[in-house]
Amino acid sequence: MRPGLATLRAVPMFERLDGGLLGQLDAITELLSIEPHQELCRQGAIPAVLHVLLDGQVALSGMAPDETQAVMEVLRPVACFVLAAVLTEQPYLMTATTTTAVRVLTIRAPALRALVRTDHSLALALLGAAARDFRTMVRQVRDLKLRSATQRLGCYLLALVADPAATSAQFRLPFDKALLAGRLGCRQDSLSRAFATLRELGVETHGGAVILHDVPRLKAFAMPDELSDTPVG
Amino acid sequence: MRPGLATLRAVPMFERLDGGLLGQLDAITELLSIEPHQELCRQGAIPAVLHVLLDGQVALSGMAPDETQAVMEVLRPVACFVLAAVLTEQPYLMTATTTTAVRVLTIRAPALRALVRTDHSLALALLGAAARDFRTMVRQVRDLKLRSATQRLGCYLLALVADPAATSAQFRLPFDKALLAGRLGCRQDSLSRAFATLRELGVETHGGAVILHDVPRLKAFAMPDELSDTPVG
Repeated sequence: MRPGLATLRAVPMFERLDGGLLGQLDAITELLSIEPHQELCRQGAIPAVLHVLLDGQVALSGMAPDETQAVMEVLRPVACFVLAAVLTEQPYLMTATTTTAVRVLTIRAPALRALVRTDHSLALALLGAAARDFRTMVRQVRDLKLRSATQRLGCYLLALVADPAATSAQFRLPFDKALLAGRLGCRQDSLSRAFATLRELGVETHGGAVILHDVPRLKAFAMPDELSDTPVG
Repeated sequence: MRPGLATLRAVPMFERLDGGLLGQLDAITELLSIEPHQELCRQGAIPAVLHVLLDGQVALSGMAPDETQAVMEVLRPVACFVLAAVLTEQPYLMTATTTTAVRVLTIRAPALRALVRTDHSLALALLGAAARDFRTMVRQVRDLKLRSATQRLGCYLLALVADPAATSAQFRLPFDKALLAGRLGCRQDSLSRAFATLRELGVETHGGAVILHDVPRLKAFAMPDELSDTPVG
C-alpha cells in the first residue's frame, strides 16, 4: 500500500520536503505491517529498500564470522535504517529484526538513489540524517570505551527520564533485558550485577518497571554526556 | 595560503567536482602546516572549519565528564574530520590532536554549509562521505561488542597487510602502542598481553616493527570481516 503524503510528511527527515517531491517518494514507497521476530534485512546483502520505522521496535544486530551476535542498536519510531548502506550501495553491516509488531515504510533503493541524484532538497534532508546517524554511533563508541557497564546502564536509564529537571522518575524499560545487555555491550549476568550496584544509588526495578529515587545521585555516578543533539526539526 | 585546485582535486571526496565549484571551495579554504601535539578542534566546541588531513596523522579522542580520555580513531591521509559536526552545526563529540607534523586544509564551516545548500554535486559528495564515516563507526562498535581485545588487535594487524593473498607480511605499526591501545578500546597492559598471545600465532614484534609469519592462522583466529567497503572513487 502507498503511504500517502501525510504519512511521509510525519517522518522528521521528510517534513520540509515540498508536495511534488513527497508525491515522487510516495510512488516508490510501500507501507507494510510486519509481525514480531521477522528479519527485515540481513548483514551482507545489498539493500533493496530503505526502511523507515513508524510503529513498533526493531533491533539492529551485527554478527561475527563465527556467528556470535551483538545488538548494535534498538530503534524506536521514527527512525530510518540503514541509510548509509542504501546510499553507498554497499552490503548491510547489520541485520534488522522486528522485536514487536511494526509498521514500516520501504522505499525502493535504486529509485531513491535516482531521486537523490536529481533532487537537491532530498539530498540535503538525507545528508542531515546521515550526519545524525554518525553522531549516534560516535556516542556509542565513546560509551563503550570510556564507561563501565554499570555507568552505561545508568546513562541509559537517565536518558529515559522525560523531564530534565526531575529528581525522581518512574518508567518501563522499552525492551527486555537480553536486548538491553546487547545494546549496552555486556553479558546478561553483567547487566544483573549492574542493576544490583545501581540499587545502592536508588534504582529500584520490578521486571521491566524502573523507579529512580535519586536522579542527581545517579547522574553523579554515571556522568551522562551533556552533548546530546538538539532534536531534528 | 589557498590550496589551489590541484590540491583540492586530490581529495577523494572532491575529485568529481567541476572546476567552478572547486574554485569556490578554494576561496573558503586554507592550507596549513601544523606541528605535532597541537589541538585542532575540541570536544564541545561548535565547528568553525572542516578539516581535511593531507599529510601526517591526527588522533580523535573522546572525553568523559571526569576527563578520562579514549582514542576513538587515528586518522591517516586523506581524511576529513569532523564532517557530521560541521554539517549539523552541533558541538564536536571528539577532540582532534596532531600526533605528527601535519598538513591540513581548513574549510570555513558557515561558507561550506552555504555552498552545500546551493550546490547539488557538493551535497552528493558530502553525503557519500558521511555515509562512509557512519559505516566506519558501525564497524568499530561491532568490533568492540563482538571481538576480544586480542582478536581486535589481530584484525587491526591484518588490515595493514597490503596484499590480500599474502601468507606472510612485514610492516611497521603506523602509530605508537598507547594510541593503538586506545583505538582498540583496551588498556596498554591488555595490549601487551594481546601481543604476547598472538606470538603463538606467528606474530613477531620488535618495537613498532611487525612480522606476520602465518597470515592464514591469524585470520582463522581473529576472523576479520569480509565486509569492507570498496574504495572511494
